[in-house]
Amino acid sequence: MDGLLSPVWAGIPAAEQTSDHAFLAALLEVEAVWAEVLADGQHVEFQDAHSVRRIANEWTHLSELSPERIAAAAPAGGNPVIPLLNAVRKVLSSRGESDAALHRGATSQDVMDTAQMLVAHSVTESVLADTARAADSLAALAAEHRGTVCIARTLTRHALPSSFGLRAASWLDGLTQAVSEVRSAAAQLPLQWGGAVGTQAGLVEIVGAGEARELTAQLAERLGLQNPGQPWHVQRQPILQLASALTSLTAAYGKIASDILLLQRPEIGELSEPRRAGRGGSSAMPQKQNPVFSVLIRSAALGAPGHMSTLYQAASLSVEERPDGAWQAEWPALRDLLRLSAGASARAAELLSGVVIHPQRMRQNLEEAGPSVFSERLVETFAPYHPQQRSGVRDAIARSAAEHTELAPLLREEIPTKALADQEFEVLMGQILDPAGFLGRTQEFVDAALAAHRQENL
Amino acid sequence: MDGLLSPVWAGIPAAEQTSDHAFLAALLEVEAVWAEVLADGQHVEFQDAHSVRRIANEWTHLSELSPERIAAAAPAGGNPVIPLLNAVRKVLSSRGESDAALHRGATSQDVMDTAQMLVAHSVTESVLADTARAADSLAALAAEHRGTVCIARTLTRHALPSSFGLRAASWLDGLTQAVSEVRSAAAQLPLQWGGAVGTQAGLVEIVGAGEARELTAQLAERLGLQNPGQPWHVQRQPILQLASALTSLTAAYGKIASDILLLQRPEIGELSEPRRAGRGGSSAMPQKQNPVFSVLIRSAALGAPGHMSTLYQAASLSVEERPDGAWQAEWPALRDLLRLSAGASARAAELLSGVVIHPQRMRQNLEEAGPSVFSERLVETFAPYHPQQRSGVRDAIARSAAEHTELAPLLREEIPTKALADQEFEVLMGQILDPAGFLGRTQEFVDAALAAHRQENL
Amino acid sequence: MDGLLSPVWAGIPAAEQTSDHAFLAALLEVEAVWAEVLADGQHVEFQDAHSVRRIANEWTHLSELSPERIAAAAPAGGNPVIPLLNAVRKVLSSRGESDAALHRGATSQDVMDTAQMLVAHSVTESVLADTARAADSLAALAAEHRGTVCIARTLTRHALPSSFGLRAASWLDGLTQAVSEVRSAAAQLPLQWGGAVGTQAGLVEIVGAGEARELTAQLAERLGLQNPGQPWHVQRQPILQLASALTSLTAAYGKIASDILLLQRPEIGELSEPRRAGRGGSSAMPQKQNPVFSVLIRSAALGAPGHMSTLYQAASLSVEERPDGAWQAEWPALRDLLRLSAGASARAAELLSGVVIHPQRMRQNLEEAGPSVFSERLVETFAPYHPQQRSGVRDAIARSAAEHTELAPLLREEIPTKALADQEFEVLMGQILDPAGFLGRTQEFVDAALAAHRQENL
Amino acid sequence: MDGLLSPVWAGIPAAEQTSDHAFLAALLEVEAVWAEVLADGQHVEFQDAHSVRRIANEWTHLSELSPERIAAAAPAGGNPVIPLLNAVRKVLSSRGESDAALHRGATSQDVMDTAQMLVAHSVTESVLADTARAADSLAALAAEHRGTVCIARTLTRHALPSSFGLRAASWLDGLTQAVSEVRSAAAQLPLQWGGAVGTQAGLVEIVGAGEARELTAQLAERLGLQNPGQPWHVQRQPILQLASALTSLTAAYGKIASDILLLQRPEIGELSEPRRAGRGGSSAMPQKQNPVFSVLIRSAALGAPGHMSTLYQAASLSVEERPDGAWQAEWPALRDLLRLSAGASARAAELLSGVVIHPQRMRQNLEEAGPSVFSERLVETFAPYHPQQRSGVRDAIARSAAEHTELAPLLREEIPTKALADQEFEVLMGQILDPAGFLGRTQEFVDAALAAHRQENL
Repeated sequence: MDGLLSPVWAGIPAAEQTSDHAFLAALLEVEAVWAEVLADGQHVEFQDAHSVRRIANEWTHLSELSPERIAAAAPAGGNPVIPLLNAVRKVLSSRGESDAALHRGATSQDVMDTAQMLVAHSVTESVLADTARAADSLAALAAEHRGTVCIARTLTRHALPSSFGLRAASWLDGLTQAVSEVRSAAAQLPLQWGGAVGTQAGLVEIVGAGEARELTAQLAERLGLQNPGQPWHVQRQPILQLASALTSLTAAYGKIASDILLLQRPEIGELSEPRRAGRGGSSAMPQKQNPVFSVLIRSAALGAPGHMSTLYQAASLSVEERPDGAWQAEWPALRDLLRLSAGASARAAELLSGVVIHPQRMRQNLEEAGPSVFSERLVETFAPYHPQQRSGVRDAIARSAAEHTELAPLLREEIPTKALADQEFEVLMGQILDPAGFLGRTQEFVDAALAAHRQENL
Repeated sequence: MDGLLSPVWAGIPAAEQTSDHAFLAALLEVEAVWAEVLADGQHVEFQDAHSVRRIANEWTHLSELSPERIAAAAPAGGNPVIPLLNAVRKVLSSRGESDAALHRGATSQDVMDTAQMLVAHSVTESVLADTARAADSLAALAAEHRGTVCIARTLTRHALPSSFGLRAASWLDGLTQAVSEVRSAAAQLPLQWGGAVGTQAGLVEIVGAGEARELTAQLAERLGLQNPGQPWHVQRQPILQLASALTSLTAAYGKIASDILLLQRPEIGELSEPRRAGRGGSSAMPQKQNPVFSVLIRSAALGAPGHMSTLYQAASLSVEERPDGAWQAEWPALRDLLRLSAGASARAAELLSGVVIHPQRMRQNLEEAGPSVFSERLVETFAPYHPQQRSGVRDAIARSAAEHTELAPLLREEIPTKALADQEFEVLMGQILDPAGFLGRTQEFVDAALAAHRQENL
Repeated sequence: MDGLLSPVWAGIPAAEQTSDHAFLAALLEVEAVWAEVLADGQHVEFQDAHSVRRIANEWTHLSELSPERIAAAAPAGGNPVIPLLNAVRKVLSSRGESDAALHRGATSQDVMDTAQMLVAHSVTESVLADTARAADSLAALAAEHRGTVCIARTLTRHALPSSFGLRAASWLDGLTQAVSEVRSAAAQLPLQWGGAVGTQAGLVEIVGAGEARELTAQLAERLGLQNPGQPWHVQRQPILQLASALTSLTAAYGKIASDILLLQRPEIGELSEPRRAGRGGSSAMPQKQNPVFSVLIRSAALGAPGHMSTLYQAASLSVEERPDGAWQAEWPALRDLLRLSAGASARAAELLSGVVIHPQRMRQNLEEAGPSVFSERLVETFAPYHPQQRSGVRDAIARSAAEHTELAPLLREEIPTKALADQEFEVLMGQILDPAGFLGRTQEFVDAALAAHRQENL
Repeated sequence: MDGLLSPVWAGIPAAEQTSDHAFLAALLEVEAVWAEVLADGQHVEFQDAHSVRRIANEWTHLSELSPERIAAAAPAGGNPVIPLLNAVRKVLSSRGESDAALHRGATSQDVMDTAQMLVAHSVTESVLADTARAADSLAALAAEHRGTVCIARTLTRHALPSSFGLRAASWLDGLTQAVSEVRSAAAQLPLQWGGAVGTQAGLVEIVGAGEARELTAQLAERLGLQNPGQPWHVQRQPILQLASALTSLTAAYGKIASDILLLQRPEIGELSEPRRAGRGGSSAMPQKQNPVFSVLIRSAALGAPGHMSTLYQAASLSVEERPDGAWQAEWPALRDLLRLSAGASARAAELLSGVVIHPQRMRQNLEEAGPSVFSERLVETFAPYHPQQRSGVRDAIARSAAEHTELAPLLREEIPTKALADQEFEVLMGQILDPAGFLGRTQEFVDAALAAHRQENL
């Protein structure tokens, strides 16, 4: 399954759901359900449909159908459906059974595209479930830490006070928006069924146009996919919609992981990855506890855009009624995106359920940032009293930072006491330097993120 | 404007709408409207707000504010807003006017992000208008040519009959789906207004939390943007949603252009780009008429995914409260995507309004493809009469193609006349070889695409 | 091995060479050779080194070391080396053997990076061998068809005569240049050995600095890798060099495949993919012979740039002494690049060895392109006699093409007979319309490509 | 020049060198030199060549030739050369001069490709000069700080001691390797001159084959480009080689900038960007000093891979004798790569010449990392005395880190005094905890990087 080089998704359910084994099973499932639909419509014999179904159920016991063998034969046909059908026909023939119900009126792209949608269906379910867990953890963090003050950083530098709850709320908001795209794409995963060139001419030949419509609808319903009303073999918007949703979500996780990796640095220490026995060790340094889950999530986020970009290129090149390379390039790219987004979701669900917050250290970092982080406030408050007004206060702050001198005495000296008495100066300075009073609309923004999260969940 | 190397968008309105000049105007417009909102709320003097507004109106006459000068000073601040504000302050000061209404409670990212949304707003309007024209042309082609038979091609080879109307319908369907994403993104373009670190603390300091909420809402409304209820400075889903919609649309155009480039090849000749005086000439070959618009559209489609991929990478790296590189990398990438999608739309609107269809040549190519393109139908029809049934007919067709011999006599020979009399054989063969009778659900699929197009337009 | 969705490389040797199994074997090989080097230097017991070597030789029989199990345990450590070492220690301990020779002074990145270089080593050998075959086939085609005239096409339109040999020479030239990069990268594949942070401090602790240098050199030599003299754990130029070389080569193959896909189209028919029994069939259309190898090669070329782009992004983000996500993102991207380039090479070697050229059809397409393809020549020849000189001849050619009228009479009429007598006109026209006389420096360019190919092979 | 959104390159010489103005000048220069070469060969009149040269010299005074006008007319021809030639012809005609020396035997792609190489030539010179400065600064830092101890960080966590000089040496090494690729690509920038379809047939028509060879060689020499001996109009390896070299270099700078951005964080504080008046200010926070140059360099590194990926895709799609979209997609992508790499080089040259190192803080961070960073050494030293040997010492270290207890007493307790006497224990512990004694081959690696740098400069 090629998981050795991809620890972000190795071992999670989506690894199985996207294996060659799972794809082969999905291809056979599409063929079997189609045979059954045809049989129910009395267009093939029940017995013949049953022969196909039996193979779909028992294929793992048939060496002719091993994924390795089918994969090795795929180059000759350009896709795995062709050797798969050959193998199925051989099995049927060896059993003295008919292939009359197999692949009737269908083309290999119908089966490939539809099987990919089946795989996407199962993986997006995992993604949505894990993301729901991750989002709930973030909602709890946002609520709990809405008043946990910390220093906000812009362009890596200390800026103004904020609260950790707001940061968690912002992370949550990223998930809420991205997950809504994933949910929408997952709910619309469409059957792709157009026959050799997207007209269903072969099928209509066998069953007539009205019945072709009816059978197509049946097929979609039994597979749990949407019936788009027309083929999309060379109009790949459904793939693009799915791909961009998955990559958006992976990017939202990437942002969270990147922030966590900064915040858990020893020098910053504002949070920690949950310690689990056996996780995060180093091969050379026994004392190290590595933030492995954040690292893996970030690796997924760094890898996803390349695959998405391949899919968008391929869509442009989906010429005529079956593209000469662009369609084939989609298969591994979409699989990789499914795996990376599932891996990021699974690791994040676990990571966020146990991430340890260090409010003490947050406050300490905030204090070490010094009074200049309150500069906006200092300017607004003292400008009316300073002879040079806003620019005067600004200069004082800049000087204090540059010269590492205390701001209060410096400012006191510049503001005439007749403009502002000592006592009042002290009071104002005390108010200004209280971070909890300088959080702006933080509470409101946290509430908005929580509300959006609740609404998305309804 | 750097259009010399980008003929796909050079000279169209979006070129102006995305120029440095336009971005500078948008930055100043955001500052001016914000000053006015503050004045209306009685938080700054009307006169001071008016000073800002005047500069926003007259800036093109002020050499201090030339885009070249601001651009050259931007590196020192890391973004163009900082030197712009310096320049505005200098002008105000030289006029003896106050800067008290300028940029109050705002940060440079607020102004940059929001100005980009303004630019995106104007460009997406052009994109949607041009795409509406392109889609209407396709709808007319689909309707007119629903019965124009042609040969469908899969993996570059002749496959089955289809109709040109269905191809146009499939192109239309790509636009319909992509444009719905663009429309949705365009309708949701959000204000980004969070102050230094996304808490609006500075603004709340000046006007209080309730009033900050009210003023933010006012600002969004006056700028014609949505009010998202919270900042998104480091949660870039709105950028991603816009980017993927634009790239989807460009890919849909890329598919159309790629198909046209194939179909208009001299050896295929099924359609032509509209000839306009002076267009499509060659510098070395006077006789050539190049399909320049298709070529340019395709070049846009090939270029777009790289920019999209940069934006998704950047979203993952949008750390803390202002990212250290990822935010800055977004600016040119989003501009390029806007330009490429606008260029593709504009060229396609013109191209599709005049594309010339050659039904005669379509039919001729279909005929030259030979009877084997009806193989599905031949198999279904003659299998019951052939001693080896389906596989017997399949073999006959393959042999006929490989040996370049006529199929009918070959098949006639293999099917016993007692199973199928000569006359009936002739009648069946005649029916089978009529492409118009082998179009499957083509009409229905054309109708579905037209209906989806009409619905999208409501 | 995940080959089901990647027929371009499924079943070729590189598939085995890049499997999880192969990577695990490479990891163990690095550990075993290192243990042996240490033993030879008398820093560990021979017996202990032998214990490690035995596991490296027999690991496939040890269920604790199955790739699936190691992969599933990798997330906890963030890379597969950590669980692998744990498993090896467990086996050693169960055998009552010491782990004293295992992984001494090394870190997991040393082993991962070096194992990847080993894998790259074996794959690039396959790539170079297959490319040598492909290039030889092209050289033969270029030589044989240097005089086979055909129509050259620019922007899809008929342009001027050329020869098929020149086209093959141009394809060859692409390979020659790209393969030189691959060869150079393959010859420089470096050991990566820096210990925990790239100082080899741990190793020096055990054996001293001079001996550390010596042992490192030994290790490189025994593994067949270059000794770069210093670690490159966070300076990823060797990865980039390899990646760009492989992607260049894949692009060179992509250009060839894209051209072949156009030239073998039924309406053009200038060449064919070799027919092999069982290859290129269709699941729905028995008569079709699909150009599957070209399609697969092109799919590889479309997929490669996304992976390369991930590697270049990762290099930028290779922070400090081991990156937090960027390093991990490299693993699958490099493996995919190795596979795609190997798949493209293998398919191309076979395709080009049997591609069938149709000179008759080339000449026919050239003739159908009409006299206007000689326009440059017509202009140069007749301009001196035409009253409006060059522009006069140009206009005549354009009019002839636009109005589908014959050029010769039209031109004859415009050129005064006293300027050019009828007979001379006829002679000149005859010379001009002979394509063999209008091939410019074709022979020379063919020779240059052949010479460069020979030189590259030395 | 679109610099407003790209502060990384706005205002540097490469901005001018890559402007529309510069490209137009390059196009005209190619035409003028070609006319002169033809005149020197006595194939056109000197006077006519001079007419072309005069326009190339004076074009900025001719409104017909403004870049805006040519850009706006480019879509009709699909590239800017066609309207440029039209405009030049109009000017010549208005002056009563002949166009007989203009563009003889050439095609627009010859002029475009070659002009791009001219632009690349001037930009790569800037890139190499700036990189030489940057590399020299790094070499000085590496030499000066070879003994400046600091804590190395892996996966964001404290690992082992290292020296800042080694880090600078590793940065230097990245530049040394990448710059060698850029230098090689810059030295090989080739003329592209093939006429309409790459045969030079038109030129041979006029001057004969031998003379065509001679004139082509002349042209290359006068333009300062290499003469590749054959056209590469559809074999884009030279573009790929240049693109990957530039992106490698940008990635090497990206790694440096990413490291600096981490190291200069307030909580880490191991170095600072040079303070310059007016640089790094914030629009909202007067106290802030932003690391703007590192941020901008990193933004360039994040943006470059998308452009490179477009170029590699385009190379795959460079079909026939002039590609239908792929060629056109190259132009802006290559320009953007030139700009980003030049911007990164320029900013880095300035940044690295003044970066301020804080050895005190480095040592302090190292000390705060605690004794566990010496764990490898502790294990090697004390294992022989500990009852559980290596694993015993490892456990003690891990416990000390987890329980925040001092390691020395803990270890003392576990090691029997008869195995190791107190005094000896103290001595050993003191030696181990001296970072300067635990730097492995640091000095040697620094020397190697300095030597490679010197050699690259020769």
